[in-house]
Amino acid sequence: MKEYFISKSRRLRSTSYTSRIEEQGVTAYTIYNHMLLPTRFGGPLEELYHHLKEHVQVWDAAGQRQVEVNGKDSYKLVQLMTCRDLSKAKVGRCYYAPIIDDKAKLINDPVILKLSDQRWWISLSDSDVELFAKGLAIGNNFDVNIFEAKIDIFSVQGPKSFDLMAKVLGPKIRELKFFGFDYYEFGGSKHLIARSGWSKQGGYEVYMEHTEAGLALYDKLFEAGVEFNVKPGAPNLIERLESSLLSYGNDMDIGDNPLECGFDKYVNLESEVNFLGKEVLKKVKSEGVKKKLMGVKIDSKKINVTGSINMYDKNNKLIGELRSGSFNPMFKQVIGIAMVNKPYFKDSQEFQISIDGNNCTGKVCDLPFI
Amino acid sequence: MKEYFISKSRRLRSTSYTSRIEEQGVTAYTIYNHMLLPTRFGGPLEELYHHLKEHVQVWDAAGQRQVEVNGKDSYKLVQLMTCRDLSKAKVGRCYYAPIIDDKAKLINDPVILKLSDQRWWISLSDSDVELFAKGLAIGNNFDVNIFEAKIDIFSVQGPKSFDLMAKVLGPKIRELKFFGFDYYEFGGSKHLIARSGWSKQGGYEVYMEHTEAGLALYDKLFEAGVEFNVKPGAPNLIERLESSLLSYGNDMDIGDNPLECGFDKYVNLESEVNFLGKEVLKKVKSEGVKKKLMGVKIDSKKINVTGSINMYDKNNKLIGELRSGSFNPMFKQVIGIAMVNKPYFKDSQEFQISIDGNNCTGKVCDLPFI
Repeated sequence: MKEYFISKSRRLRSTSYTSRIEEQGVTAYTIYNHMLLPTRFGGPLEELYHHLKEHVQVWDAAGQRQVEVNGKDSYKLVQLMTCRDLSKAKVGRCYYAPIIDDKAKLINDPVILKLSDQRWWISLSDSDVELFAKGLAIGNNFDVNIFEAKIDIFSVQGPKSFDLMAKVLGPKIRELKFFGFDYYEFGGSKHLIARSGWSKQGGYEVYMEHTEAGLALYDKLFEAGVEFNVKPGAPNLIERLESSLLSYGNDMDIGDNPLECGFDKYVNLESEVNFLGKEVLKKVKSEGVKKKLMGVKIDSKKINVTGSINMYDKNNKLIGELRSGSFNPMFKQVIGIAMVNKPYFKDSQEFQISIDGNNCTGKVCDLPFI
Repeated sequence: MKEYFISKSRRLRSTSYTSRIEEQGVTAYTIYNHMLLPTRFGGPLEELYHHLKEHVQVWDAAGQRQVEVNGKDSYKLVQLMTCRDLSKAKVGRCYYAPIIDDKAKLINDPVILKLSDQRWWISLSDSDVELFAKGLAIGNNFDVNIFEAKIDIFSVQGPKSFDLMAKVLGPKIRELKFFGFDYYEFGGSKHLIARSGWSKQGGYEVYMEHTEAGLALYDKLFEAGVEFNVKPGAPNLIERLESSLLSYGNDMDIGDNPLECGFDKYVNLESEVNFLGKEVLKKVKSEGVKKKLMGVKIDSKKINVTGSINMYDKNNKLIGELRSGSFNPMFKQVIGIAMVNKPYFKDSQEFQISIDGNNCTGKVCDLPFI
């Protein structure tokens, strides 16, 4: 596949780490929340996939921006935007929480951090939730402040991330529970660190607020990480598909509702809380969804998904569309995420798909893959 | 400067023309409203700049998405979002209209098309105004529909665009006035075409809604355009700076208000209409702005602006930041757009700036450059 350059400009914002990762050999970017997000370093993606599953990587994940909502009505606004019941949310915890509009269409699938009763961070996938929140707050006359916080996340991912972080920050960080966060001292500053990250290989996300001390920590991880074979990395398409981590804009978008995306456990329709699209979702739930995000396995050794690819049954009837995919070394075939129409969204449903002009066969499967 | 690849995926949406421009030799993209926007074809940007000023180009400008607002309260919502008085707006006209929030901060600088009394298109620069509009509409309980329309614009720009379009669509299109739009028949469909575009070399924008007939028109322009030396092109950094066309995200952003950006004639504070940030802007106006977008000319033959670059006076005092720039063949030096602090935002103010480690001198100037 022919490759194209990215034309950098101020609008495609650099991060606190851009100059570092460019010295460290980044070769490709995507754009995420109007910001450069690295995707590749040197060689094939598969090398980084194997490395991520065995060692530890540090990622520039600053594109995952934080919208801060603070003030008297901050909970009311945050709750209004998500179908997940946050009424019992605890300070120091992260919540994966779909954000939807009044038609129950998906606007983002962030992780929401409760910093205090009146202060929240919405840690975003790729859409301007700041603008949605502002519109809602203005229209409802809520007493809140809303802004993009000056936070550049870096992520430490991989099985050796625990040893590396403990070596640099002390053993206490091993006690942090999954989706918990706390503050850890380095270089004279306290850093908010969560046990989270966009891989299933374990690790942390450093919400870097104090630039000087934060960059010193970033550098220290590479220095101290030699014994753990640390490398710079990036969210890895192969790993995230294998781990069934969904990507907003790729796998699902504003045309889908959270029940179609399999987010049932984050859709709290029985709760008392008030959120947009609640009645719509009740109706969807009672009638059943008409399409659903599913896994697929395809008899092919390669694929490049740059847009939806139609899937057909043996009678040439359209049954859905593939939205993401990559060759997976463990399954030894292409796996991917597809939006599949009713009644075809069932395990083992066979389909045909054209990949670069070649007809391939595949099977629908339940998520997660493993 | 080292170049980086762009990692394509469904999230960075292709347009109706992507497969065509990739055959036509596109070499680089930027991302605009989550979509691929071409920036370069083959050789140096300067070649395309000279060509654009002499001949005619067809651009894939689909990244300039349309948010459609229709319904009973559509005018009320559109007016609420912009400081430009649209109470006397006419069907068939385009309006450059800054969109601002309740703090008068700039959210977008679209062209707004009035399609009928209850139907508007907001033709966007790079931010998710759909989400802002939805939030406001929900909060205010407005009776409107809001969605991203399935419109892929292509732009025909350059002095010979009038001859080319008249040859293909008939002489009547020559009568279209600047920022007017009308419907023209081709391939059995009516196409909304505006006399507009993101260059100052003259031309049209085709709001392509009917894909088959629209692509036939796109192809026909290349076939019929041989005698006018037609080429595929893209918004051109050199030309747009020379023509003082501002770029949201590059030259101005959510940290700026429209008076700081020199949009005074689109800020209708004396009008009766109700819009967000009106009282804030009255205060700004009475107190005077504390920073202002200005032109700059720099004694250098090259520059790559990928982020803000600080500007200092001779006493090493920070006086502003450069936000866009390029070498200009007519001025034979670098020109650019900078946000300059009070009291330095005056014509001929001298400054120092570091470009790739070299100290250069420059002068602030009024906009437009020519």
